[in-house]
Amino acid sequence: VPDERTTATSGLAHVGEAGLLRRLLPLLPTGPFAVLGPGDDAAVVTAPDGRVVATTDLLVEGSDFRRDWSTGADVGWKAAVQNLADVAAMGAVPTGLLLALGAPVDLPLAWVEDLARGLAQACAEAGTGVVGGDLSAAPVVFVSVTALGDLQGRAPVRRDGARPGDVVALAGAVGRSAAGLDLLRAGRADLSAALVQAHRRPRPPLDAGPAAALAGASAMLDVSDGLGTDLGRLAAASGVHVDVDAWWEDARAAELEATAEGLGEPALARRWVRGGGEDHALVACFPPGTALPEPFVRIGEVLPVRTGRPPVTTNGDQPVTGGWDHFG
Amino acid sequence: VPDERTTATSGLAHVGEAGLLRRLLPLLPTGPFAVLGPGDDAAVVTAPDGRVVATTDLLVEGSDFRRDWSTGADVGWKAAVQNLADVAAMGAVPTGLLLALGAPVDLPLAWVEDLARGLAQACAEAGTGVVGGDLSAAPVVFVSVTALGDLQGRAPVRRDGARPGDVVALAGAVGRSAAGLDLLRAGRADLSAALVQAHRRPRPPLDAGPAAALAGASAMLDVSDGLGTDLGRLAAASGVHVDVDAWWEDARAAELEATAEGLGEPALARRWVRGGGEDHALVACFPPGTALPEPFVRIGEVLPVRTGRPPVTTNGDQPVTGGWDHFG
Repeated sequence: VPDERTTATSGLAHVGEAGLLRRLLPLLPTGPFAVLGPGDDAAVVTAPDGRVVATTDLLVEGSDFRRDWSTGADVGWKAAVQNLADVAAMGAVPTGLLLALGAPVDLPLAWVEDLARGLAQACAEAGTGVVGGDLSAAPVVFVSVTALGDLQGRAPVRRDGARPGDVVALAGAVGRSAAGLDLLRAGRADLSAALVQAHRRPRPPLDAGPAAALAGASAMLDVSDGLGTDLGRLAAASGVHVDVDAWWEDARAAELEATAEGLGEPALARRWVRGGGEDHALVACFPPGTALPEPFVRIGEVLPVRTGRPPVTTNGDQPVTGGWDHFG
Repeated sequence: VPDERTTATSGLAHVGEAGLLRRLLPLLPTGPFAVLGPGDDAAVVTAPDGRVVATTDLLVEGSDFRRDWSTGADVGWKAAVQNLADVAAMGAVPTGLLLALGAPVDLPLAWVEDLARGLAQACAEAGTGVVGGDLSAAPVVFVSVTALGDLQGRAPVRRDGARPGDVVALAGAVGRSAAGLDLLRAGRADLSAALVQAHRRPRPPLDAGPAAALAGASAMLDVSDGLGTDLGRLAAASGVHVDVDAWWEDARAAELEATAEGLGEPALARRWVRGGGEDHALVACFPPGTALPEPFVRIGEVLPVRTGRPPVTTNGDQPVTGGWDHFG
């Protein structure tokens, strides 16, 4: 039971599970779709469409974040947006998040309150909230978020619908989170505060997901493990070949190149753009002639599979590889 | 990439994330409500009612289970049923589960396959399946499951609807999981294989949830932290007092008493029944005169709050306390 002596530096063992809930719940609005929020055995969320989109993504301390590189609010923000991007990538709007939190018993209460604030900020920007969750003691911090979404009557935009002739288009940034992480690793956060911030607080273009669905996107996914890897998934699921011919159209590429040079490794810029995940850009395919919805820009085209050609190429022949494996 | 040398004792690092998914997905049917199962950014599940029930519950190695006391299949089963019980406690039927799994890179592949089989067994018995999930490396095993459910047009049965005069009724077992855990702790699993099994594979009366809703239950919850604690939550939420006068009606109480005596601590039996969680029995309140649906049995009554009386009593005056705090 928390008492007058509970402070922000008190560990979770001091406040206990019920005390922690009393601290967190006021920080976590439930959003406009919650019929019944936290406090009962389960939440109830409206599903106006008669279907519900559901996705779960984990962040584990040590594997996915470090507490000396990201604040609690950064981790809460990221846990929310990586799930919100998955909902957007189906063409849906988010209707509610559930939070499962594992935390060491000596973790400061302030860190968890900060996490809740970051989660709430991301939810508020996306027009949703936290409808439920669970807590447990654990040797490291981990955050498992489930996001629910509504398709508003549209068909889900799957990754297997791309057809030869489609345009490949990108909404949002790629490589910036990976660049920020490399700056932190190198102890050179001074080289670009913007890129470090892109790592700590990625800003996926969530509205672009439903916009792509409305515009008739044939396939879509969020870039979580690197553009090369994720386009490879799209290509494999759709049974097509993807060729990217405009990696560098984005003006922000110059910032990546300058930063890579600042680190003394110019080749990193290309690796960040092609293999960096965690920006949660959306990549989508559109039938030829589609007026691309903002902020999508054309980056390549869908071609038929040809024996001997790797599934994703750049400028027709160079293979694109790289990406992230949690157990590799 | 898994190869011919991959065996059941290979660690997860050997098969990698994609290889692990290829092993797990065939073990996890998606169930009848899945419109789109694993493999895309998110799943799509039908929500015929226009609302969706959603709940998340965690199991963390060390805090919630031990790998030397429970098999992977036991943990998978338990991760499923503790969430399915929450769905049932709202009066809903389950429509899909999402699984977030953290695991050490040297965890044997066979353990995770076993977990998937246990999860699938529990889902199959409940008429549902696994529609999505996520994996990450972690220093201990943890399983975060989110369950979705459908209310079939009924109002959710909340914990705050109990009224003085209502009958308090219990479906399912209490204290048996706690007894089994104490047997494992004492190294005396030989005293009762049935109680150890009740700890490893709790069997909540899932059908009793919708049945209680149909019968007009005024309040309901699942007993996850002990009957005393959980009735206290119901009493506090409803603004009522609960008196239990029939803890011992269940014939299985004799087995608990004999086991407690076998451990040389007869007082344990009462503690298991009153304070033991994890059996995930359902406790519900019904307006006076309601014909209790099977397998509910009357265990007490709802009374008005009276100053100075603890929120949950037995036989009108003795306070009932105890229960589980993850950070206490």
